[in-house]
Amino acid sequence: MNQSFDIAVVGATGTVGETIVQILEERNFPIADLHLLASSESVGHSVPFRGKNVRVREVDEFDFSKVQLAFFAAGPAVTLSFAAKARAAGCMIVDLSGALPSAQAPQVVPEANAQALSGLSQPVQVSSPSPSATALAVALAPLRGLLQIEQLNVTACLAVSTQGREAVAELARQTTALLNLHPLETSFFDRQVAFNALAQVGKPDAQGHVPLEKRLVTELREVLGMPALKMSVTCIQVPVFFGDSFSVSLQLAGPVDLKAVNAALEAGDCIELVEDGDYPTAVGDAVGQDVVYVGRVRHGVDDTSQLNLWLTSDNVRKGAALNAVQLAELLIKDLL
Amino acid sequence: MNQSFDIAVVGATGTVGETIVQILEERNFPIADLHLLASSESVGHSVPFRGKNVRVREVDEFDFSKVQLAFFAAGPAVTLSFAAKARAAGCMIVDLSGALPSAQAPQVVPEANAQALSGLSQPVQVSSPSPSATALAVALAPLRGLLQIEQLNVTACLAVSTQGREAVAELARQTTALLNLHPLETSFFDRQVAFNALAQVGKPDAQGHVPLEKRLVTELREVLGMPALKMSVTCIQVPVFFGDSFSVSLQLAGPVDLKAVNAALEAGDCIELVEDGDYPTAVGDAVGQDVVYVGRVRHGVDDTSQLNLWLTSDNVRKGAALNAVQLAELLIKDLL
Repeated sequence: MNQSFDIAVVGATGTVGETIVQILEERNFPIADLHLLASSESVGHSVPFRGKNVRVREVDEFDFSKVQLAFFAAGPAVTLSFAAKARAAGCMIVDLSGALPSAQAPQVVPEANAQALSGLSQPVQVSSPSPSATALAVALAPLRGLLQIEQLNVTACLAVSTQGREAVAELARQTTALLNLHPLETSFFDRQVAFNALAQVGKPDAQGHVPLEKRLVTELREVLGMPALKMSVTCIQVPVFFGDSFSVSLQLAGPVDLKAVNAALEAGDCIELVEDGDYPTAVGDAVGQDVVYVGRVRHGVDDTSQLNLWLTSDNVRKGAALNAVQLAELLIKDLL
Repeated sequence: MNQSFDIAVVGATGTVGETIVQILEERNFPIADLHLLASSESVGHSVPFRGKNVRVREVDEFDFSKVQLAFFAAGPAVTLSFAAKARAAGCMIVDLSGALPSAQAPQVVPEANAQALSGLSQPVQVSSPSPSATALAVALAPLRGLLQIEQLNVTACLAVSTQGREAVAELARQTTALLNLHPLETSFFDRQVAFNALAQVGKPDAQGHVPLEKRLVTELREVLGMPALKMSVTCIQVPVFFGDSFSVSLQLAGPVDLKAVNAALEAGDCIELVEDGDYPTAVGDAVGQDVVYVGRVRHGVDDTSQLNLWLTSDNVRKGAALNAVQLAELLIKDLL
C-alpha cells in the first residue's frame, strides 16, 4: 500500500468534524484524497484544507470503497446508518458518536489503553470516547498503578460546545439579550443557561442518571480497564463556550503521597500539571491545547485517604477531534 | 422591656447588609430605631426602610449602647474592631463575618442547630455561617438521623455576588467587553471569570485548601453536630451573578432508600424538593427565595451506598441575610 491514504470525515461541518480536518492538516496526516461528508442540509458548504476549500458532499451518496478510513463525527443516528456500509466496503472506522458497541468498536484513549487496538478484526472499528471520558482517562491513566481507588466522584462542568453549534449560539444570544435587558428566549436548552448552572444535561432515566453521565461511567471503566470502578458523576452545564472542567475526588484504600501523585502526573502523557497554588482554567489554558491540564492536587480536609484534582480540557479538540486523529495515526502506523 | 427593639446593621451598604434591612422590613421585625452603619466611604448613602431613606452613619462614631442588637455584615476586620465594644455596651450580636471563635459566638442555622442558642452568656453573640455552610446545613439537617455518612463530597459552584459588589460588576464588565470584542480587563478576579470556571476562590494554604473551603468544613461540622465528618470540598467560581449551586455526593455505611430520603427532605424545614426528573437552578428557582432547593436525588451509578444531590440557594438572602434575621428573631423571642 502507498504511503498516503484516502480519508472521509462524516459530519465535516460540525464543530468536531471541522476540528478533525484542521488537526489532520496540522499533524500532516498522510492524506491523498480527503472526502468531506454531511447530511443534505450541509451540502454546498466547504471546509478549508491545505489552502483549498474542500466541498462537502452528501453522505448518502458516498461510495466508502473510495477511502481506507472514515471518521464518524455526526452523531449516533448517522453512524448507525452508514458505519456498516463503510465497513462492508473495507473502510476502517473511527467513531465519535458512541453508537457502536464496545465488542465491535472498543473505546480507546491512546494515553490510557492503546493496547486495545491490537488484534482487532479487519477492517478495524474503534470508538473515540466522549470528551469527558477522554479527559478523565488521560489524567487518571498514570495514577492507576499508584492508587487503590475505592470510589471516584466527578462533577463535570461542561462547555456548551459539547452540545454543538446551536448551544454555542444560544449562550451568546441569551447573554446579549440579558445584558441589553431584552426578554430571554430559550430554544436549545430547556431554560436560561446564561449566568446560570444547569444541573442536568439531557433526560434522566428511572435512576436519575442522564445518558451523558452513564456514557462517561461506561467509557471510563473500559478505557482505564477498571470495570468495577465505583463512580458518582454529575454533569452540569455551565455558561462557558469551550473547555470542560472537572472537579474530581478519589476515595482511596489508604493514605496517598501527594509527591508521588505529582510525579506520576508529571510523567504522564499529554498532561500539563499546574502546581504551587496556581490552577488551570478552560479559557486561560485548555482551549486550543493538546494536553489535559491538572491542578489543585490535594488531600481531602483532614483526610489523607482522599485525593482531589481539578482538570480542564478542550472538549472539542483534546476531548474529541484530536483523540480521534491520534487513533487514526495508530491504525495506519502498521500500514505505512 | 418594651415590644420593639433598637437595631444596628453594620455594613448596611453591602449586598448582604442591604438585604438584611429589606428582610427586617418584610418580616416586620419589631424595630423602634434602625441604625445603619458603615465605613467612612459609605457615609452619606442612605438605604430605604419602611418608606423612608435611612442615612448611613460611620460605625467608628456609633454608641452601641443605643441598640439592643447589632448585625455585623461588613467583613472580619470590622467585626474584630467593633464587636467587643458593642458587647461591652450590652448589645447582642449576630455576626456574618466568621471572625468570632465558636466558643464566643456559636455558628447557628435555625433549621439545623437552634438549640445551640440556649444557655449562652449575656449579651448573646451568635455567628451566621457562610452561605455555603448555611445552604448545606439546611439540606442535610433532616438527613442526619436517617443516614450514616462516612464521607461528604461537595463541589460548590459559587455566584460572584458571594464576593461582593465589585465581583458582580466585574462579571458584567468582562461579559460586555467580550461580547463587543473589546480587550478584557481583570481587577477583582485574578483572571477572566466571564464564560469561564475558576477552580480556586482565594489563596490556598500549604495543603491546597482555600479559606472558603476550610470555613465551610469547620462551620458545617459544627452546625450539623458532626465534628468528625470527613469532607472533600472544592469551591469554584462560576459566571453566575446570584445563587450558589452545590453538587453533593455522600458515601454511606450501607444502601440508602431514596424514598426515605425524599420523605425526610419533604418534611425538612425551608427545603423545596424538586422531583420527577426536573431540577432546580440558581436563576430559575433559588434567587429571591427563602428556601434551599434540592433536586437530582439519586444513588451513585451501580452503587446504592452513594447518595447524590443537587442544591441551589440564594447566597445573599437564604445563605446570609435571612439566616441572620432568623437568628435575631430567636434571640429576641424570649425578651418579648
